[in-house]
Amino acid sequence: MVIVMKHHASSEEIKYVMQHVESLGFKTHPVYGEERTIIGVIGDERPVEPEVFDLLPGVERTMRVLKPFKLASRDFHPEDSIVQINGISVGGDQVIVMAGPCSVETREQLMETVAAVKQAGAHVLRGGAFKPRTSPYAFQGLGLKGLELLREARDEYHLPIITEVVSPTDVTLVAQYADILQIGARNMQNFALLHAVGETQKPVLLKRGLMSTVEELLMAAEYILSHGNQRVMLCERGIRTFETVTRNTFDINAIPALKSLTHLPVIADPSHGTGKWEYVTPIARAAVAAGADGLIIEVHPDPASALSDGAQSLKPEKFAAMVDEVRRIAQAIGRKL
Amino acid sequence: MVIVMKHHASSEEIKYVMQHVESLGFKTHPVYGEERTIIGVIGDERPVEPEVFDLLPGVERTMRVLKPFKLASRDFHPEDSIVQINGISVGGDQVIVMAGPCSVETREQLMETVAAVKQAGAHVLRGGAFKPRTSPYAFQGLGLKGLELLREARDEYHLPIITEVVSPTDVTLVAQYADILQIGARNMQNFALLHAVGETQKPVLLKRGLMSTVEELLMAAEYILSHGNQRVMLCERGIRTFETVTRNTFDINAIPALKSLTHLPVIADPSHGTGKWEYVTPIARAAVAAGADGLIIEVHPDPASALSDGAQSLKPEKFAAMVDEVRRIAQAIGRKL
Amino acid sequence: MVIVMKHHASSEEIKYVMQHVESLGFKTHPVYGEERTIIGVIGDERPVEPEVFDLLPGVERTMRVLKPFKLASRDFHPEDSIVQINGISVGGDQVIVMAGPCSVETREQLMETVAAVKQAGAHVLRGGAFKPRTSPYAFQGLGLKGLELLREARDEYHLPIITEVVSPTDVTLVAQYADILQIGARNMQNFALLHAVGETQKPVLLKRGLMSTVEELLMAAEYILSHGNQRVMLCERGIRTFETVTRNTFDINAIPALKSLTHLPVIADPSHGTGKWEYVTPIARAAVAAGADGLIIEVHPDPASALSDGAQSLKPEKFAAMVDEVRRIAQAIGRKL
Amino acid sequence: MVIVMKHHASSEEIKYVMQHVESLGFKTHPVYGEERTIIGVIGDERPVEPEVFDLLPGVERTMRVLKPFKLASRDFHPEDSIVQINGISVGGDQVIVMAGPCSVETREQLMETVAAVKQAGAHVLRGGAFKPRTSPYAFQGLGLKGLELLREARDEYHLPIITEVVSPTDVTLVAQYADILQIGARNMQNFALLHAVGETQKPVLLKRGLMSTVEELLMAAEYILSHGNQRVMLCERGIRTFETVTRNTFDINAIPALKSLTHLPVIADPSHGTGKWEYVTPIARAAVAAGADGLIIEVHPDPASALSDGAQSLKPEKFAAMVDEVRRIAQAIGRKL
Repeated sequence: MVIVMKHHASSEEIKYVMQHVESLGFKTHPVYGEERTIIGVIGDERPVEPEVFDLLPGVERTMRVLKPFKLASRDFHPEDSIVQINGISVGGDQVIVMAGPCSVETREQLMETVAAVKQAGAHVLRGGAFKPRTSPYAFQGLGLKGLELLREARDEYHLPIITEVVSPTDVTLVAQYADILQIGARNMQNFALLHAVGETQKPVLLKRGLMSTVEELLMAAEYILSHGNQRVMLCERGIRTFETVTRNTFDINAIPALKSLTHLPVIADPSHGTGKWEYVTPIARAAVAAGADGLIIEVHPDPASALSDGAQSLKPEKFAAMVDEVRRIAQAIGRKL
Repeated sequence: MVIVMKHHASSEEIKYVMQHVESLGFKTHPVYGEERTIIGVIGDERPVEPEVFDLLPGVERTMRVLKPFKLASRDFHPEDSIVQINGISVGGDQVIVMAGPCSVETREQLMETVAAVKQAGAHVLRGGAFKPRTSPYAFQGLGLKGLELLREARDEYHLPIITEVVSPTDVTLVAQYADILQIGARNMQNFALLHAVGETQKPVLLKRGLMSTVEELLMAAEYILSHGNQRVMLCERGIRTFETVTRNTFDINAIPALKSLTHLPVIADPSHGTGKWEYVTPIARAAVAAGADGLIIEVHPDPASALSDGAQSLKPEKFAAMVDEVRRIAQAIGRKL
Repeated sequence: MVIVMKHHASSEEIKYVMQHVESLGFKTHPVYGEERTIIGVIGDERPVEPEVFDLLPGVERTMRVLKPFKLASRDFHPEDSIVQINGISVGGDQVIVMAGPCSVETREQLMETVAAVKQAGAHVLRGGAFKPRTSPYAFQGLGLKGLELLREARDEYHLPIITEVVSPTDVTLVAQYADILQIGARNMQNFALLHAVGETQKPVLLKRGLMSTVEELLMAAEYILSHGNQRVMLCERGIRTFETVTRNTFDINAIPALKSLTHLPVIADPSHGTGKWEYVTPIARAAVAAGADGLIIEVHPDPASALSDGAQSLKPEKFAAMVDEVRRIAQAIGRKL
Repeated sequence: MVIVMKHHASSEEIKYVMQHVESLGFKTHPVYGEERTIIGVIGDERPVEPEVFDLLPGVERTMRVLKPFKLASRDFHPEDSIVQINGISVGGDQVIVMAGPCSVETREQLMETVAAVKQAGAHVLRGGAFKPRTSPYAFQGLGLKGLELLREARDEYHLPIITEVVSPTDVTLVAQYADILQIGARNMQNFALLHAVGETQKPVLLKRGLMSTVEELLMAAEYILSHGNQRVMLCERGIRTFETVTRNTFDINAIPALKSLTHLPVIADPSHGTGKWEYVTPIARAAVAAGADGLIIEVHPDPASALSDGAQSLKPEKFAAMVDEVRRIAQAIGRKL
């Protein structure tokens, strides 16, 4: 950390601050400037809240030097992590596509969708059984019945499945059905849930919260990693801003920023990232052009009748066209799909 | 809902949309404008996602008419709700003050704090036992031991206690100790947790998420209310914006907006709302001047040594001065404290 | 500044960075930490973009130590500045109220409004003659005719007037009519305009941009101050956030933050800060409770027929009631109105 | 517009609102729902502020039906506009690249840059002579001398030039030198300036404000178009959000959204959109993959010594590599560069 003293801080104040910081086990090193003195603090600052030093006499503010995450950082793990899922490698040369309905609604809907996405080239089937919904009056998912239908689709079409888990109490159950556990955006800082999935050995797709910084996403990954599960994939799915012409603002910058800061694979979700099916294909192309390791896409055979997220779901034929377009982008940057 | 058709929508498209909407049980009523036709949709739109109609041919967009919340709304419950807590009325003439440490750290720290806040005029003791922390390396709270210390302070000082619950599995346990269950900002849309506290009959303080709208806060309250628990208090605690001079941006507008939209009491948290102890007192005065029914304030006997949120904690003597200043504001608007 | 080197930065890189920074006239001072080396940079960093040092080999990032503003800062001007306007002191014990219509529309409308606001206790008459409007199809103000009507009202009612100037070419003209020049939110970073008003000796009310940080507001003030005009008042008028239940989010935290960082007076605009007349009075109370030195309020005799900002304008009788309520708040914190 | 009446609005109130709205020249059409009555308002709502009707008795809120822009809209101009600049077509099959230094600093710096960007394939030379800077202490540009150097580079290298104009008084001067007038982000709602460039017949590149919506960008374009200048290009350059890992958040969604709403060409600025040179190339690829008609890129021969925006400037060799990568993306989506 660096502690910045106030303009007129006295030498007694500077001395007091240095002694206090040293009493916590740090070393200190003052630098006397023209207008202000700063104190360099040497040692592992990660368990500390820097703001607390702002309370010491004569302190103006305190700034972090170290990034607060460690296991997720490239500093200590420079090479890319590859997450293996039933023979599929995420994070390498190949761009991976996960696709399927927002919610599992019926066997017919699910089977029609899985047949279509498999044929179009998807590598993983997505589908929601437990649905976190803003309204208590909206469809909440089929629950266990949904998991069973996903398992049936998985076995028939030989596609691994990803589905969301919303409560620590459900982790064991969902892990028996799913190949990948999804942590949804609204649960990105549900630390009890992160702890629980961190104790499984299932791959996890961790979605960025609507309100979360890239650094907070990496700290949430750090929770999972520090509980022993190394198979974590991150997902950019749009953040909340003042703009309302789209449902969310897809943070395309986060893709190269994450690839620079962390070794974990980065997946893009242009369905939630835009909220409108017309924009899903251009943003899918853009995400892969920016370096995303994969896509997760909502597909529904009849979006206008979907029980959730219909407005951002692609019909199967649009999805197949999207895969073709994205494949050309992947090839243009030297990857394959 | 109102469905706005595109500029050149054909009469066949208009007819198709009306038939589709009617097939879902709504009535329709078209209004033919100069540039666009709109279709009024009559019926309870709350279980529907309006965006799904944007997929129908010729539709430009769909706008809600009804608010998505009902039990939390003044439409169906015009008079203020008063929440009773061990003889204290929240939501009436009196402004209520809840105060105490961010985290329970030791018996000494808690007992010194409770003695001070009681003497200064606080009505409720706050204190965290289960702490949701951004970093897995930070202090996570004393857990059950913290609950026991809170109970000890409660019994000795005759102050009801409020403490946070972070997981559905903990609700039963925490409810045995606490007089008020707190749902933290990061869990405002943890629907499994909302469901669980909705099934208790304990008063709940529901904190607004950092990037949640006022409407989403009311929808979260609707979850609790619709599961049978009517004793809900809302808490404005600052939202995330582009501004970084303070930790959060306290949304003072939300206070009169909530008082206008809902019958539930509104509590203000200037500690999290600013993140800096120097600004807590002026924002506490402002919140009460704007109509807040109460305050929740972090107090610590030695903030510079606090294990969490030290920078925004008041020392006991500053807290006592704050209560005096707020009391004068309460009197100036015809309330008491 | 503090330059943070990368985890594995070599000693050659550290040496190169120090030499480069010294070649620009700074002194340097390295601090060797456990995971990273930091380099303290000594000298006036204000004319420099710190990010440019991020380009040097081995650098992770660069952090400012000094605030970028100087004339506006309390560091070099600790005591409050009082701005004198025709015998009225802004920034002292008294809370000042500026009030009047958003736009000057007709002589009748203006004269009816000025009579009412004067009687209710306002100290300054506001009124727009040149109106910056989002739509080219909306009413753009009466221009010179509006200035003449304001002058007539000023002379008849002996109230100083404040009106907006939108272009550097108009500054001389507007300064002949107005007692206070207003810089609107959309022009806060119109540097040509700031330069022009900085060369007059008229008091200036500088409104914070919707998208501007507190620091940027102070930098805009610095433009005016550094061109020789010391009579600057700042105005918090709401910022843009994700929340849509109000037109803007009034940043109440900015009031104590500004009072702490700068010696300049701070005025609050709850009309734009909320966008809804029902919320103007509670937010006016809150702003004064938080420490604002004055208010600027939109008043219109018939808001439903106003040519601009009707929805946020108070009727004269509501305004008079607001002044009474705010006066009680001012007294509760030891000020007068 | 649609006026939504309150839950318990009386039939007198509904009648009064209809009469008032009709007195302004609109037709009305009520729709009686189960919980609320809505009133469809027929006529051109663009010159009206819908919020003003919220003041009428019994009204809950008013919603726009028509988009507030007309000349910029595809409704009345369905086919793409192609802007011609000295034989270059912007908005057609070809992706256009504009490149050069943030600021013109010296003849050597400019000539070295223009030679490099011309050879790498750029179509237009960018360079700032009048610089809007956040700090009054920062380099403000060479002014007229900068324009003369740009003209010299233009004549020698046969590249059209784009440069920013910051004040209405400078428009005539800058238009004598520049082939394209740039309106910067901070001036997007400087209506006096928009008016002035609208009266020239020079092509205009209109940059989106940091916190302006897509709709406000189109309204700013409407100002220029409605004053007679049809040669307008829009520029997405990143918006301000809560995220700080990049300088701005490049709103990739805005590209397909703009292409859908307007016929005007859309240019992307990944230099400002990210603020870090390492991210410029991936975001340039992404922008073209999403459908941008061109790019504007900051290039400097020695970024670490640049007087402005060094951290986001590419060196000439990185720029040449970027053009190659973007060309492959353009080809993958059926365009050329």
